[in-house]
Amino acid sequence: MFVIGSGAKHLEDEMRQLGAEIIEVELRKFPDGEKYVRVMGSGSEATVVSSTFYPQDERILELLLIGDALRERGFEKLRAVVPYFAYSRQDRVVKEGEPVSVRAVMRALGLYYDELYVVDIHNPRTLSYFPGKAINVSPARAIAEYFGEKLGEGLVLAPDKGALGRAKAVAELLGVEYSHFEKRRISPTEVEMRPVEVDVRGKNVLIVDDIISTGGTMIKASSILRKLGAGRIFVGVTHGVFAEGAIERVSKAVDELAVTNTIPTPVSRISIVPEIVGLQSARE
Amino acid sequence: MFVIGSGAKHLEDEMRQLGAEIIEVELRKFPDGEKYVRVMGSGSEATVVSSTFYPQDERILELLLIGDALRERGFEKLRAVVPYFAYSRQDRVVKEGEPVSVRAVMRALGLYYDELYVVDIHNPRTLSYFPGKAINVSPARAIAEYFGEKLGEGLVLAPDKGALGRAKAVAELLGVEYSHFEKRRISPTEVEMRPVEVDVRGKNVLIVDDIISTGGTMIKASSILRKLGAGRIFVGVTHGVFAEGAIERVSKAVDELAVTNTIPTPVSRISIVPEIVGLQSARE
Repeated sequence: MFVIGSGAKHLEDEMRQLGAEIIEVELRKFPDGEKYVRVMGSGSEATVVSSTFYPQDERILELLLIGDALRERGFEKLRAVVPYFAYSRQDRVVKEGEPVSVRAVMRALGLYYDELYVVDIHNPRTLSYFPGKAINVSPARAIAEYFGEKLGEGLVLAPDKGALGRAKAVAELLGVEYSHFEKRRISPTEVEMRPVEVDVRGKNVLIVDDIISTGGTMIKASSILRKLGAGRIFVGVTHGVFAEGAIERVSKAVDELAVTNTIPTPVSRISIVPEIVGLQSARE
Repeated sequence: MFVIGSGAKHLEDEMRQLGAEIIEVELRKFPDGEKYVRVMGSGSEATVVSSTFYPQDERILELLLIGDALRERGFEKLRAVVPYFAYSRQDRVVKEGEPVSVRAVMRALGLYYDELYVVDIHNPRTLSYFPGKAINVSPARAIAEYFGEKLGEGLVLAPDKGALGRAKAVAELLGVEYSHFEKRRISPTEVEMRPVEVDVRGKNVLIVDDIISTGGTMIKASSILRKLGAGRIFVGVTHGVFAEGAIERVSKAVDELAVTNTIPTPVSRISIVPEIVGLQSARE
């Protein structure tokens, strides 16, 4: 049985269409800003779905309150599905005195949840901070399906080597080539960015990544691909954490920009709901 | 050593005046709303002070991040001082399916903090949800000092029997009488509220309570006291969680309304900073 948190309201209809059984839940705020939650169902296992986009701290707290309510009601096994995991980029200490913020959130969720499912988390190693079983769900099927026909005999590129695994997963599903961009300093002030060991001339290109915010990297990559004579250029990203104006800027630079619905945005046209509902049926 | 969270900025100057040693901390927000914290000092013990008034969920998360940063820096013993503790009124299941929200917050703070200090928490029994040592600090000294001279040979009243202990603590410090209001149904539609076993005629009265929000109870109590011929009427409450317009309404109904600075408001004239700084010196 699923419980839909405030960060998954936008997924509810599709979840129902795919046959998910959903427990009613009451979610509201008191005048002083405190959240109130109440879960109506009962049972022994539940999967709480809520993506932690802005206001992320409220959604994290809500996940704890829902967890507490379910335990209080006697649920024995609780899973959290957090498609976009807030604080996932604060995954290490860069300057002395910083926290590993994602660890704090993982540990807090671990107070109530036995299992955690995330979609394409920025650094999968951070899942080890969750005290229970933690699984990183791949968006590759969804992205490949959405762009497959448009891409044709094109290729999939990662904006940097770190994201190569993401490009590979999508490319292998489509049976096309993949590679990544690399940055090279060509003068004291200039850095060149170019795709490694692939010829993009005349080919459609799909650039994939986990998070897009300002879109600067995608715009730069697109401009290089245009110069290299690429065909149509697509951007398919998992989490659309867009900065102000970024959707417009990237959309203008490429032939199509689409992200998944881990975060609801005007370009969240790729659905990871089958993955979420599938998790459940695979287990029951 | 103290660390000042965003919910204690308003206490910092007075803490320094009272000799508190304060570790520098950087607190800001990323454009996507994620909090960033960085603590500059080092040592083995630290006391993090932050009251969790609105936006309470952000302040709770910040306390976790500061805790994580301090642990990462090697601090071994951490105390949290949370003068106003958010979710403290959600202290039990009223309707089936509700969480015990205060428990979830206590447990989350317990991930990082060994000791918890709160000021006049709504239900002191909820402190047992905190895994470590938890202490409820009384505001009685501060309230008694603030109102003592004005009250003179008056008396201290609690608005209901549940708050009697608060009235007693203040009254005993001042060497004056105390009692409480009680509600009695006098007809199917009318409830009468009156002070029990005390004569208020000609006497100044101080009404004390832990939380004031709409102020409805205080206004009603004041109107009853006026009818009974009381002298000057004062309201001294610990936490000013005021609803819109409540300060004005209550101020008009009584001779003076003052709350402590656990939450910064225009009438937070009673300081609990000596208690906070004192905690530290008592321990070191």
